[in-house]
Amino acid sequence: MRKRVAIIGLGLIGGSIALGLRRQKIEVVAFDRNKESLIEGLRLGVTDRSADSIAEAVTGANLVIIAVPVLAMASVLKEIKACGYAGLMTDVGSVKQPVLEEFIAVYGEVPDQFVPGHPIAGSEKHGVSAAYESLFRQHRVLLTPLDNTDQIAVQEVRQLWQSLGAEVSLLTVEHHDSVLAQTSHLPHLLAYALIDTLSGQGDSLEIFEYAAGGLRDFSRIAASDPTMWRDIFMSNRGPLLAILDQYSQDLLELRSVIEAGDGNELFDRLSRSKAARDHFSSLLQQRHEQPQLSSELSSELALKAPGEDK
Amino acid sequence: MRKRVAIIGLGLIGGSIALGLRRQKIEVVAFDRNKESLIEGLRLGVTDRSADSIAEAVTGANLVIIAVPVLAMASVLKEIKACGYAGLMTDVGSVKQPVLEEFIAVYGEVPDQFVPGHPIAGSEKHGVSAAYESLFRQHRVLLTPLDNTDQIAVQEVRQLWQSLGAEVSLLTVEHHDSVLAQTSHLPHLLAYALIDTLSGQGDSLEIFEYAAGGLRDFSRIAASDPTMWRDIFMSNRGPLLAILDQYSQDLLELRSVIEAGDGNELFDRLSRSKAARDHFSSLLQQRHEQPQLSSELSSELALKAPGEDK
Repeated sequence: MRKRVAIIGLGLIGGSIALGLRRQKIEVVAFDRNKESLIEGLRLGVTDRSADSIAEAVTGANLVIIAVPVLAMASVLKEIKACGYAGLMTDVGSVKQPVLEEFIAVYGEVPDQFVPGHPIAGSEKHGVSAAYESLFRQHRVLLTPLDNTDQIAVQEVRQLWQSLGAEVSLLTVEHHDSVLAQTSHLPHLLAYALIDTLSGQGDSLEIFEYAAGGLRDFSRIAASDPTMWRDIFMSNRGPLLAILDQYSQDLLELRSVIEAGDGNELFDRLSRSKAARDHFSSLLQQRHEQPQLSSELSSELALKAPGEDK
Repeated sequence: MRKRVAIIGLGLIGGSIALGLRRQKIEVVAFDRNKESLIEGLRLGVTDRSADSIAEAVTGANLVIIAVPVLAMASVLKEIKACGYAGLMTDVGSVKQPVLEEFIAVYGEVPDQFVPGHPIAGSEKHGVSAAYESLFRQHRVLLTPLDNTDQIAVQEVRQLWQSLGAEVSLLTVEHHDSVLAQTSHLPHLLAYALIDTLSGQGDSLEIFEYAAGGLRDFSRIAASDPTMWRDIFMSNRGPLLAILDQYSQDLLELRSVIEAGDGNELFDRLSRSKAARDHFSSLLQQRHEQPQLSSELSSELALKAPGEDK
């Protein structure tokens, strides 16, 4: 029988997964609270079929992919549980601990058939009309299985992502949320704040008009979906505020160095940043040129407990 | 007689100007303290001729373009003055007030044949080997003439930049330094600080490996030349620290909103940033589609005193 996947939440991520699965002749049934997304998904050939309810979508599915914002998860889980679906599940949430908490609230535990996942891919565009099949190609997908997660379930979800061209790494939930606070959530927060500060200045049109490379990069980040980012900032608040405080401290030090006019110290700090950036860039580039080594190194990294190499 | 331009400082900017001028059959004579840059410039066909001294470069030139870091300006000006050159001059410094101070220190005043200029163009690469002719095409060049600056001199420098494909705007020195602190210097400072904070974390290789779009954009900014940015931060310290303090205040507010878990307020702030960004993007896009309107609007903006529309 033809394999069937249910996608709950048909936006950029859900839609792009759907496109990749359909290419593999897997049947894709979608549900979204927004009926227009479902109509658009059918029209664009992203999905095979739309469901009128979550129950209809998940019944008979071999895998359920939950691709809704983290804060919309609770009601989705209640409906999945209510209809008795007990098969393989995964999600795409940018923060993992809050997702587990939603599962515990609904199921009393995290089911062993649920594999928490997070594709590190996105675009400033959103919605199913922005979906494209190669979105995950050569992008990382992080899976954060728990001790009780079924190993076969992990293997199946890993293969699904690999079939879409992604590079899969496993890490712990805590480690995931802390690393993402640093690499993604903090930069987004800083960019939103910068655009807010600058657009509050009197001559803001001019500011954007004269925007040099610096501002333009920040500005692109701040064009991301506010609902999604509110949810991320709120739900990963602990790790985010921790790294924000560290950053604010470092920024304050840099401020003192500039105010004191200490050119040598300032040069040393800027050089250190550039050197770190160049170092990591070149390491990562080498890794991409040696895919064999790459996957060995990543599994090594993935198995390392958080903070082990501090 | 064939027109001759002297370029003092043969890096990315000086070299790119040289390429554009040679294309127009203008003779380009270059001087740089680094002899290798001069050799490379000749080898790559960027310049017509290398000079052994500033005196040799400027003698007989119709225009002298000073393209050295702001903090290297003083010694260059002394040599230009010493050899008696009194013709047309311009510069490309990212901060304008300190350049004027260097002129006043050497000449006792800002000569009326000097037109302060700043092309808003660059690359993470630097040096003459990174130079390319189209660097300034469709980029802004800001000129900040003083009350005593010769109008014909301004016109000639404006035409020079227009011949390289740039869009020229005029504004006051104070306004320039304040706008640039906001659009360029602050973003660079924030990016350097972020890379420094993150590379100080224990699992930094992993952080860069999992870097989502957010960090990648910041990381590119922090790859810029530390010497150049030290000079910029040091020499534009007043306007830079002013906008940094405003930013830190806004960031602190955002932090409180997240810590308090106030999702509505957070959503409003993120939406405001996105709306501002989208608003200005679309205004600027319209402007680019209507070049006639564009130049009218820019001259209007350019003539507006700083803070007039606050």
